[in-house]
Amino acid sequence: MITVTVQTRPRPYQVVVGHGVLDEAAERIRAACGAARLVIVSDQNVAGHYLDGLSASLHEAGMTVSHVVLPPGEDQKTLARAEELYGVLYERKMTRADAVVALGGGVIGDLAGFVAATYLRGLLLVQAPTSLLAQVDAAVGGKVGVDFRAGKNHVGAFYQPRLVLADVGTLATLTAAERRNGAAEVVKYGLLSGEPTLARLEAALAPGTGADLPPESAGSASAPPKSAPPRPAPSGPVPRLEPDPVALCDEEIIAECVRYKAAVVVADEREESGERHLLNLGHTIGHAIEAAGGFSLYSHGESVGLGLHAALWLSQRLTGLDAAQAARGERLVQAAGAPSRLEGVDLQAVAGLVSRDKKAVADHVPFVLLEDLGRPVRGVHVSTADIEEVIAWLAAR
Amino acid sequence: MITVTVQTRPRPYQVVVGHGVLDEAAERIRAACGAARLVIVSDQNVAGHYLDGLSASLHEAGMTVSHVVLPPGEDQKTLARAEELYGVLYERKMTRADAVVALGGGVIGDLAGFVAATYLRGLLLVQAPTSLLAQVDAAVGGKVGVDFRAGKNHVGAFYQPRLVLADVGTLATLTAAERRNGAAEVVKYGLLSGEPTLARLEAALAPGTGADLPPESAGSASAPPKSAPPRPAPSGPVPRLEPDPVALCDEEIIAECVRYKAAVVVADEREESGERHLLNLGHTIGHAIEAAGGFSLYSHGESVGLGLHAALWLSQRLTGLDAAQAARGERLVQAAGAPSRLEGVDLQAVAGLVSRDKKAVADHVPFVLLEDLGRPVRGVHVSTADIEEVIAWLAAR
Repeated sequence: MITVTVQTRPRPYQVVVGHGVLDEAAERIRAACGAARLVIVSDQNVAGHYLDGLSASLHEAGMTVSHVVLPPGEDQKTLARAEELYGVLYERKMTRADAVVALGGGVIGDLAGFVAATYLRGLLLVQAPTSLLAQVDAAVGGKVGVDFRAGKNHVGAFYQPRLVLADVGTLATLTAAERRNGAAEVVKYGLLSGEPTLARLEAALAPGTGADLPPESAGSASAPPKSAPPRPAPSGPVPRLEPDPVALCDEEIIAECVRYKAAVVVADEREESGERHLLNLGHTIGHAIEAAGGFSLYSHGESVGLGLHAALWLSQRLTGLDAAQAARGERLVQAAGAPSRLEGVDLQAVAGLVSRDKKAVADHVPFVLLEDLGRPVRGVHVSTADIEEVIAWLAAR
Repeated sequence: MITVTVQTRPRPYQVVVGHGVLDEAAERIRAACGAARLVIVSDQNVAGHYLDGLSASLHEAGMTVSHVVLPPGEDQKTLARAEELYGVLYERKMTRADAVVALGGGVIGDLAGFVAATYLRGLLLVQAPTSLLAQVDAAVGGKVGVDFRAGKNHVGAFYQPRLVLADVGTLATLTAAERRNGAAEVVKYGLLSGEPTLARLEAALAPGTGADLPPESAGSASAPPKSAPPRPAPSGPVPRLEPDPVALCDEEIIAECVRYKAAVVVADEREESGERHLLNLGHTIGHAIEAAGGFSLYSHGESVGLGLHAALWLSQRLTGLDAAQAARGERLVQAAGAPSRLEGVDLQAVAGLVSRDKKAVADHVPFVLLEDLGRPVRGVHVSTADIEEVIAWLAAR
């Protein structure tokens, strides 16, 4: 097991990554926050695997435990569901000395986290992420929220958990698609941090996943310099790789992602100084794609994967990313299972949604791009024309 | 004009108290947070007096201003209203660089503040309190929220404004009842801080308001020591004083309250170390009375006034408050226009609601009581029997 401490103020918290972490939940929760009354919030998929075991072990440790099980899916992340959960907490007379345990993926973590953040102005919160995506991203850093209209997490808060229990063992019951959903975020950390993470990810993804494809088949070299705007014709059906990035479900790899995120979060807990924007690599266009697809056509991971493709393309044009490095990044994104091409959504809608990004400031949306792999630059002003162009390129690859 | 700086982290903010503060809104907002796009949230009562003037001056200063005007009243503080306001912010494409200006009393400040706190995880917030209650209490310190079922502010957040504009001139258009609504909070600060505020408040309230009533008519000496539990018989109709505490609408007095609150808030911004509980003097039972009366039978100020009566009674029994000092406190509470007696609510319901207090911890609710005027003590464990007894006493005075 690996413990990463997130040095937030006024109080740090621990992220415990490893196999069997959930078995130690009772003692770790007691040590972290002393809560003795807990409501576990989970979804039907996850609850079937882990709820009974977790409840029983907490109960055996003398804690008062109850639970709420929701249907699975992003469409649960609404104000209406939050209100229902407030009702549950009200009926169970939860106090600020009591804890909400979010047992599930990012949807559960975001929704239960928002409810914990706002009920009585804040109950204790324990994140128990059970998806790769949630373990490397959602459960760490304190962003919680629900969707509002087309805006993902448009209503939310910054609210740090008291403890994060990332049990790597739970990733074994994910589907390959669910693992791919988190793989794009893992690759993002590689692109942001460079070596040694990049090489480690390549080694993990290489066997039979396409990371060793020759550059020309990855399509990454198609972004020409500014002087010759690209207008690539559609290149015909691109074979859709659907790898199972099971090798990323690794204690060390997950802990590396968490360490990177923790350092950024501590430097900029409430997204004010700008450090935290770094984590947005691939997300500005990714979020717009996810919203344009109604949060169902593309998963978060697929959307971010497409967003990373776009970021690599824009980085070549705007921040001097070398073509060979871009190609290396592309191969990794593709090996993690990102779609090769954007299809099935209205391209104008995607461009329009970019301007609604939560990080939008006055009249523009600052982008994170790369000067090199491992050398991100933030606050890049991307013109509307470039945004439209890269979206067209994504659709025409 | 008096400026009080609230030294919150990561960023302090200013509370400007004085006549004509709203006339300087544009330059002060620009200096405080640089916002250039503003949505003013107000209610029909307040908007009629101040919205046009404020909008025009902000507009003249080159800012983009729009507004939302809600019906007045506590019943606006709901999740449904919050959701409507999210919709307004969404449609107007507000970003995190833009501000919500809460122009009104505590209801507007709490509701608009909660919406600002949670939309996009936080827009800029300017509080422009126009009631005595909001100027000395709600607008300072960062508590925002909406009501949920019987729980006042049961859903909320800690979210500091960037600026508070407390224009004392706006208090002239309040009704006497509205001024009384804030007067109980002002008296609370006197009871908490002792001299010189106490003497100043007595001087302000004395002329014809009843502060100079002889002790025996204020009923405060009726709480006997623990060894002889009080069972006073109803003492017949108590003349209801309905003074207009207009003398409290004073720049110096308001600034003194703000200074006291600011110091407490800075010591304990998120109600964690306990310092902030001090502000809860009179509120534990006050909130329960307010909720039991459906948030309409008793105003917040009347509820807190009754709660202060109860706190003085309990302080004699449990924390050694001298009877003469209790009588002095009682006179001040009464002079500020608090009801003399609790009537029209179910007493069991009041007692039951005390246990739902947001500060409840596990099996009890910590009370703030007084060892002496100006010497509060917090975390006092009051038994269920004592709670029931003081509520019965309030109803039987």
